[in-house]
Amino acid sequence: MIKEGIIGASGYAGCEVLRLLLMHPAVEVTGVGARSFLGKKVSDLYPSFYNVTDLTYTTDEEVIAGADVVFAGLPAGISEKYAKACVESGKKFIDLGADFRLEKEEDYIKWYGKAYEDKPLHEKQVYGLPEVHREEIKKASIIGNPGCYPTTVNLGLYPLLKHHLNAGTKVIIDSASGTTGAGKKLTEDTHFTKTNESYHPYKAGNHRHTPEMEQELSHMADEKIQVTFVPHLLPVNRGIVSTIYIPVKENLTLEEIHHIYTDTYKDEQFVRVLPLGMNADLKFVTYTNYCNISLHMDARDHTLIIASTIDNMVKGTAGQAIQNMNLMFGLKENTGLNFVGPSF
Amino acid sequence: MIKEGIIGASGYAGCEVLRLLLMHPAVEVTGVGARSFLGKKVSDLYPSFYNVTDLTYTTDEEVIAGADVVFAGLPAGISEKYAKACVESGKKFIDLGADFRLEKEEDYIKWYGKAYEDKPLHEKQVYGLPEVHREEIKKASIIGNPGCYPTTVNLGLYPLLKHHLNAGTKVIIDSASGTTGAGKKLTEDTHFTKTNESYHPYKAGNHRHTPEMEQELSHMADEKIQVTFVPHLLPVNRGIVSTIYIPVKENLTLEEIHHIYTDTYKDEQFVRVLPLGMNADLKFVTYTNYCNISLHMDARDHTLIIASTIDNMVKGTAGQAIQNMNLMFGLKENTGLNFVGPSF
Amino acid sequence: MIKEGIIGASGYAGCEVLRLLLMHPAVEVTGVGARSFLGKKVSDLYPSFYNVTDLTYTTDEEVIAGADVVFAGLPAGISEKYAKACVESGKKFIDLGADFRLEKEEDYIKWYGKAYEDKPLHEKQVYGLPEVHREEIKKASIIGNPGCYPTTVNLGLYPLLKHHLNAGTKVIIDSASGTTGAGKKLTEDTHFTKTNESYHPYKAGNHRHTPEMEQELSHMADEKIQVTFVPHLLPVNRGIVSTIYIPVKENLTLEEIHHIYTDTYKDEQFVRVLPLGMNADLKFVTYTNYCNISLHMDARDHTLIIASTIDNMVKGTAGQAIQNMNLMFGLKENTGLNFVGPSF
Amino acid sequence: MIKEGIIGASGYAGCEVLRLLLMHPAVEVTGVGARSFLGKKVSDLYPSFYNVTDLTYTTDEEVIAGADVVFAGLPAGISEKYAKACVESGKKFIDLGADFRLEKEEDYIKWYGKAYEDKPLHEKQVYGLPEVHREEIKKASIIGNPGCYPTTVNLGLYPLLKHHLNAGTKVIIDSASGTTGAGKKLTEDTHFTKTNESYHPYKAGNHRHTPEMEQELSHMADEKIQVTFVPHLLPVNRGIVSTIYIPVKENLTLEEIHHIYTDTYKDEQFVRVLPLGMNADLKFVTYTNYCNISLHMDARDHTLIIASTIDNMVKGTAGQAIQNMNLMFGLKENTGLNFVGPSF
Repeated sequence: MIKEGIIGASGYAGCEVLRLLLMHPAVEVTGVGARSFLGKKVSDLYPSFYNVTDLTYTTDEEVIAGADVVFAGLPAGISEKYAKACVESGKKFIDLGADFRLEKEEDYIKWYGKAYEDKPLHEKQVYGLPEVHREEIKKASIIGNPGCYPTTVNLGLYPLLKHHLNAGTKVIIDSASGTTGAGKKLTEDTHFTKTNESYHPYKAGNHRHTPEMEQELSHMADEKIQVTFVPHLLPVNRGIVSTIYIPVKENLTLEEIHHIYTDTYKDEQFVRVLPLGMNADLKFVTYTNYCNISLHMDARDHTLIIASTIDNMVKGTAGQAIQNMNLMFGLKENTGLNFVGPSF
Repeated sequence: MIKEGIIGASGYAGCEVLRLLLMHPAVEVTGVGARSFLGKKVSDLYPSFYNVTDLTYTTDEEVIAGADVVFAGLPAGISEKYAKACVESGKKFIDLGADFRLEKEEDYIKWYGKAYEDKPLHEKQVYGLPEVHREEIKKASIIGNPGCYPTTVNLGLYPLLKHHLNAGTKVIIDSASGTTGAGKKLTEDTHFTKTNESYHPYKAGNHRHTPEMEQELSHMADEKIQVTFVPHLLPVNRGIVSTIYIPVKENLTLEEIHHIYTDTYKDEQFVRVLPLGMNADLKFVTYTNYCNISLHMDARDHTLIIASTIDNMVKGTAGQAIQNMNLMFGLKENTGLNFVGPSF
Repeated sequence: MIKEGIIGASGYAGCEVLRLLLMHPAVEVTGVGARSFLGKKVSDLYPSFYNVTDLTYTTDEEVIAGADVVFAGLPAGISEKYAKACVESGKKFIDLGADFRLEKEEDYIKWYGKAYEDKPLHEKQVYGLPEVHREEIKKASIIGNPGCYPTTVNLGLYPLLKHHLNAGTKVIIDSASGTTGAGKKLTEDTHFTKTNESYHPYKAGNHRHTPEMEQELSHMADEKIQVTFVPHLLPVNRGIVSTIYIPVKENLTLEEIHHIYTDTYKDEQFVRVLPLGMNADLKFVTYTNYCNISLHMDARDHTLIIASTIDNMVKGTAGQAIQNMNLMFGLKENTGLNFVGPSF
Repeated sequence: MIKEGIIGASGYAGCEVLRLLLMHPAVEVTGVGARSFLGKKVSDLYPSFYNVTDLTYTTDEEVIAGADVVFAGLPAGISEKYAKACVESGKKFIDLGADFRLEKEEDYIKWYGKAYEDKPLHEKQVYGLPEVHREEIKKASIIGNPGCYPTTVNLGLYPLLKHHLNAGTKVIIDSASGTTGAGKKLTEDTHFTKTNESYHPYKAGNHRHTPEMEQELSHMADEKIQVTFVPHLLPVNRGIVSTIYIPVKENLTLEEIHHIYTDTYKDEQFVRVLPLGMNADLKFVTYTNYCNISLHMDARDHTLIIASTIDNMVKGTAGQAIQNMNLMFGLKENTGLNFVGPSF
């Protein structure tokens, strides 16, 4: 059994990693760390765990000491020292936050307002999107687990950009996310009375996931891709739909593009390119590790419309982290992730 | 008292017109027509009207005979004969559907699959967006009441295009609507178990409101505007948010654009340009006749982001129709429309 | 114009009173008081009021000085001094809280943990349920506006108990309320992610509205009525349904009881006894001042089942307070309250 | 691998059985029957199954022929012939509907309007509530899988009645269910626009689950228990909370009753008696096979209040059916049912 530890474990990301690991057949969870809840049971914070596990929050240091791999659900800017401790003692580190996703320190400084403390450490980081970086992930010691929005966008554009089918480098990305994306913290904007029967954009054109998207999309395209990204808050618990607009080459039909997409992902269990005519709906991916993609075209001017949807807590966070962990430890990639999605 | 009749009155649009007219101080509703429900009370279909009104569905012909003005909530393609009957007998006709919105018959044929039966009648039609066409509305006998999505888009782009601040003619419009937009008809997609905790695009790049938007936006801009429009279905009852993406001239700041917007709408009660930093949220317009607009910029490449929100049943349908009716009959434009929105 | 002031105005109750008063044709709101938000605009807290009113929170003392009638949305235990100040200067006082509802100080001490500071003041208090206490309300200077749950229960049982049709004195009351009942305060239990797709009882058998129900029901019945009351939190914004179980005399049919109910309320605009076969649904009373009542029977042992539903913020709080105010100032009882409910 | 067939498989119950069986480690699904959808893929009706299974609806007869055990999701009144076919060929039959739950034909006639066609067959039926009838289930060939509401009620009252702690035989049961309980059929009442922001009782005092509750509760108590049962429709997808009111003996404290409950269920994995002070919330059982129970008391007159909650599609239908199947085939009872519930 692989020994799994979770630090920064009291938030939603850590809670979901724990939930999925408890159903994983090849691992045991050896510790959960949360400074603010030392000595409290996980089930005190999350009653779903009542009579399921007696795990109690301890210190992050204790968790690291007992684990082969550490998942970190920490706020931006404080993962480096934990990653270093892991690497130095031969453990694997999977960061659920943003500290190991950006390749250029200047991007991190610009969007997170802070320099790297330990630059060399970042040379070890691998961007944990298995469908694009599988081989590097297998050998990695530090994973920057992708952001939830970028997961939809990167998977949604990968076949197109990899095959250079785009007719321009500007992408409009309009996303909507359920409230779990906003986390456990109580806010005016996630008070039920406010959120229910509500919908609105936030951080329009200015969200921190932008540089992560541009980095990965530019790699795929071998040219600089410019993103304008606007997320919206949806009155649902789980799920993201990103609707992506990009001009494509004039000689391409929607059917041809669809064929390239299905071919690109033909061996990927967790990416489902839907038949033409279907619409990607978060309903059919929640509580699973799938990314569903539907393709549409405004044929009047060759604007391709890609709808890409995931469960932000599974493929967007915990499921993808476990998919990475499976790869890093030589397990079958889908171990513990074969959830059949509820239809209702 | 102005005598008001509603035909095609059993659907959501007719129901909402009736609801608002029953609270209007200067009118009386003299008839509601619905072939399929002859003899049934409105309150049999909509229990909210129980003990409020005893109105009973009659034939559309009876309704027209007794009215000074007729609101029509009919499916596409059958309003012409009713409009003609009204015009010939000196009555006003306000079409809640799409039959009198498009100026070019070729657009109607392309998007609705049908030619006009009475071409000359369409010379009398006026596009009923008061903030843009107020003076023509006052004199009109036939109003094509704007579609719900186009109302958000037209109001959202009017100041920009009128002042030629755009740096291109392509607009991306990503909209989300509550389920009242899908009407009374039972469908798989609006079954509670399906819609709840769901979100998805539909008719991506191919929705019938596209030509209506392009017609009006091109008029404003004095040049051809090309729209790619993708609506989504939201798990809420009421409200639309349209997020609109358009490149603007490089020398313009967001503050300058905001100033032009507030100035353009300074005398309009029903359009509220929000202070910079606020996000348009359908929550704060539902059950009112307001359109709220917030402005944002991806300053990195001068992409303006406009969020425009209305209650699709009020400013998007019934409220706007009554605003038009008030203008046509010389009433104060806001009569019967001064609803203060619930905050929760 | 009657001058209306609201103190403790920053909470949901005060916000809703303000909203309804702004649409009332015979009053003007002269002040809103909220210590924690001095100098802030109402629209800063509640964006629905943006461009509708420029009212700014001041001190409660200033509000009282400028008003003919004062509505108080204060926490339990601090209304007395404001009520006294009003009474002494000939103003009317309508308490939206619980401080003037209970006749027996011992009940207040038991359920609120505190004695009355000014006992004689409580001799002036009138329980503000117009359908039961109309004549006393007209002459009152201090109104204890009923609790939201008790409003459903009192109206639901009034015809039965008044006519002594009950076959026992024990009543089971199972209620469900939308989240506005929990107010503006952020709590774990009203965080969207928690409340959405949730339902649970709270304070089962131990809610502070219990003595208020028992007091009023016992008056109606001329005998001691014993209530077991369990409220539940519903994932909706507005509305309460109380399902009430009480044994009735064996010789009575459901039809006979229904006849007595319709007869009792035949002159009451705001109480609608639904036809047999219909189910009271909060859907058809929200955003109105109506109470809808449906009657059902388990005929196997003569258990009457009464479902009684209101909008907790309107008939359950602000609408009822204004109904009381109308009576106190000799206005037509329904002035400003003729909202036709939205069907969707 | 045990061969599992599902007939009447196109409805919600059959769909959920299939979903859970596809994740079960010791079985294979050999067929799904649905007359109205012959030749259609399951994933055509339920897109969650896309790329998960290629199963196609066939005839019920084919399904039975290839299976060791048959789950039936049929409407009331037509299971007998399928059960008989199974029994005669040595297969097991688990009826998800109501045809094999009632012991007395007279109850079936009264509540379902129809006599049994094959009386002797019903001597083989076993009521499939494992926590109460485990040993009989192990040997059964025909299981009447409990109704969703009765599962909450039977588990909620079992310790109390078994130990004769009740002080009367009348029980009030007030339940609320998510919309999956209403099934796949499109109805006015489950149209999103109607259900959302709605709550109402239905079939008050007259629901078909009443005799099933009375049968089982009377067995537990060794005396006739009389139930008044009122279900309500909740605007959530999944989950039932039943709030149960019953008088208890005067000398008992809530702590003592709680102790008896925890003791009764100490070896039951799927029944969790919550600590005193917690409220049973459907949130913490959905997507699991748990039943959570919380206990409360109106100590003023010894009315015990029991809140009992399950996921109506899992412990209320498919999970319980699989729990029964596991018992019937000598598998570990929790095989394939160890879902850790999502906290959000």
